[in-house]
Amino acid sequence: MAGVDPRNYTNFDSQVRYAQAAERGKFQFLFMPDFPVLTGNVETEAPMINIDPMMTLAAVARGTERIGLVATGSTTFNEPYNLARQFKALDLMSHGRAGWNAVPTSDPAIAANYGRDLPSRSEKYQRLHESIQIVQALWGSWEKGAWLHDAASGRFADPFRIQPINLRGNHVGSSGPLPLPPSEQGQPVIFQAGGGDQGLEVAARYASGVIGAVYTIEAARAQRMALRNAAERVGRDPDEIKFFPGLMTTITPDRRSGLDRRIAVSGETFPQRVEYLGQMLGLQLYAARLDEPLSTAQLAAARPSPRDPRSAHALNIAREGWSLRDILAHGVIDYHPVIAGPAVEAADHMQTWFEAGAADGFWLSPDVYEDGIDALVDEVVPLLQDRGLFHRDYEGTTLRDHLGAPPQYGLDTRIML
Amino acid sequence: MAGVDPRNYTNFDSQVRYAQAAERGKFQFLFMPDFPVLTGNVETEAPMINIDPMMTLAAVARGTERIGLVATGSTTFNEPYNLARQFKALDLMSHGRAGWNAVPTSDPAIAANYGRDLPSRSEKYQRLHESIQIVQALWGSWEKGAWLHDAASGRFADPFRIQPINLRGNHVGSSGPLPLPPSEQGQPVIFQAGGGDQGLEVAARYASGVIGAVYTIEAARAQRMALRNAAERVGRDPDEIKFFPGLMTTITPDRRSGLDRRIAVSGETFPQRVEYLGQMLGLQLYAARLDEPLSTAQLAAARPSPRDPRSAHALNIAREGWSLRDILAHGVIDYHPVIAGPAVEAADHMQTWFEAGAADGFWLSPDVYEDGIDALVDEVVPLLQDRGLFHRDYEGTTLRDHLGAPPQYGLDTRIML
Repeated sequence: MAGVDPRNYTNFDSQVRYAQAAERGKFQFLFMPDFPVLTGNVETEAPMINIDPMMTLAAVARGTERIGLVATGSTTFNEPYNLARQFKALDLMSHGRAGWNAVPTSDPAIAANYGRDLPSRSEKYQRLHESIQIVQALWGSWEKGAWLHDAASGRFADPFRIQPINLRGNHVGSSGPLPLPPSEQGQPVIFQAGGGDQGLEVAARYASGVIGAVYTIEAARAQRMALRNAAERVGRDPDEIKFFPGLMTTITPDRRSGLDRRIAVSGETFPQRVEYLGQMLGLQLYAARLDEPLSTAQLAAARPSPRDPRSAHALNIAREGWSLRDILAHGVIDYHPVIAGPAVEAADHMQTWFEAGAADGFWLSPDVYEDGIDALVDEVVPLLQDRGLFHRDYEGTTLRDHLGAPPQYGLDTRIML
Repeated sequence: MAGVDPRNYTNFDSQVRYAQAAERGKFQFLFMPDFPVLTGNVETEAPMINIDPMMTLAAVARGTERIGLVATGSTTFNEPYNLARQFKALDLMSHGRAGWNAVPTSDPAIAANYGRDLPSRSEKYQRLHESIQIVQALWGSWEKGAWLHDAASGRFADPFRIQPINLRGNHVGSSGPLPLPPSEQGQPVIFQAGGGDQGLEVAARYASGVIGAVYTIEAARAQRMALRNAAERVGRDPDEIKFFPGLMTTITPDRRSGLDRRIAVSGETFPQRVEYLGQMLGLQLYAARLDEPLSTAQLAAARPSPRDPRSAHALNIAREGWSLRDILAHGVIDYHPVIAGPAVEAADHMQTWFEAGAADGFWLSPDVYEDGIDALVDEVVPLLQDRGLFHRDYEGTTLRDHLGAPPQYGLDTRIML
């Protein structure tokens, strides 16, 4: 595909270039999902995954100076000690820019890569709670100021401010201490990106940032409010948790070229998606008619499916008269809202959501073209800056600075194990 | 301590500088032990550990071009899938320079950091065998040439050359495939650094490099021969396994300044070591007499202890008339043989051992001073090059090239799970 080098899949230089572009745009953080399994049609496209989030962020940490570095790490098949050590190492390496998106694993194919079946949902969440508490306790096993590194006196550390943690839950445990001192931000920031009541509970207790998968402004506002209320219920200031709904972008001079660019990326999958688009609209649709718009009769009969929150938007796009192919190119079946078109549309989307209390910021996913991030940085960011909605430079140096989260040493909540 | 910045403990720049110096010396690989527990007297000295081998080698991979990168990864508390993924990511990131030192965990304090007790030795070794086979199978789940990355035809990979592994042992398992293509050397190289018959068996089956902890030329030759014989018994060419005994160096213009430099680093621990030195020599020795040599009567009565293979060397040093402090400064109780003195002594040591069939190379550990590696590279390496014992430049680009190990895709031996 023109504009995408298939070798980028294993090219850490391209990951570093991407991060440097985001840093040029003063983005607060990179957010790295994780999906340790081979998926997709590998014959025609690179898997949409990062080959290893921590190794990638190590490379990025060495090639950037300010942008935060948030990686997903599942607690279902990882030991708390290993998570604590590697995220803290990233935090030290980046001088206080690391964050951990703490999630359970929900795909049976991933469990199979670990030679196991998925535990029950309640067991996974119990282990997640235990793991976060152990990891935060390990991070805090060196108190603030424990690391002296005083060349003059020869004192390396204050052993009275380094303590074991001796925590043992039902699923995981650790004695500690971790042999790593605090970073410039104390310890990494917790993120959360799961869903449901159990995910909300985790976010409310521990998270400073939450990534949302939400399609409408109303749903985003409701999720953000639920999150803030849940935080208050556990005694936290709701402003301590920032909600970042996703937004996917293809920034082009006009809508048509944006759609064409998206068709070039994923148009080959459209024929098999037509049937589902029909279900969303309450119609029978056929791949053979991919290049035709809906007929007047179809538009009159169409009803957005209550089973898919993206359906109303899909119908709105259909009513604009686009062909089925172009409706799909609008990303109506994508994981997040999609902007395909001029920068001002992306800026307007974000301003509207932000001013409606539906977002504290956004997790932006530019398309896979190598210049997708540049269009965001060079065209969308200046619009937001001119409108007074986005900072013109970093105010601090750590991820906690960027999020307005206070420094942290150890657990943020009382131990519940 | 002068010449050692205590902040180096968390400074990845200093790790990269160290690696770049070793690469300037054309060293074949860096070898990174791992010891995930806080040890030592943290009040006065940095722990003698790396805070995270994989994150460190990720940084080093980005800052070097030719030197191999070998990290220790225990199979006792790590999942094969995680080991396979992270070492393969390092292999891709470094363009074929990664190696994995596959070992079991033997310290109960490490087990406690994972909230567990140590499994039995036989269980640990069974899990080690299973883990190496699963990891190698995952590495080989993409055959040679499976990754097409053909921008012209749009073909990313050949799905018929990517296969699941579906291995399940008594302790660990994985379905695969790993979503990572082969590197420039196929897959990482296996190293081994354990001991005993079970360690020998692991080395013989899987390893291309073995790190030895051995104090005398006779013992090193015996270990190397045992290793080669064990490799032949499992049907391998013994030349495929290289044996690297350790050597610790403090390179200075003369012996006296070498001893003083070592006293500055660790002299404070000497008083508590005097009693053990006495046991090695069959004498009662006292810390109060640290600055005196052994008396004629003591030298006449001294007998090297058969329980410590370092004893004969300690007695030889004592007979040279050094004080107890200086005897200890010679490193007679260290983990490996120690050279403290002029470069020619280090070169002579290596030439003697190499020509006696006691080593294929050496794992060199310069002292903790920042210029310790430079003295090795700038003073010892040229001597070995002039004697025709060491290459003047890298012949290839991958770790397999440096070791003379053939490219590998998948398991090197038949599956025994």
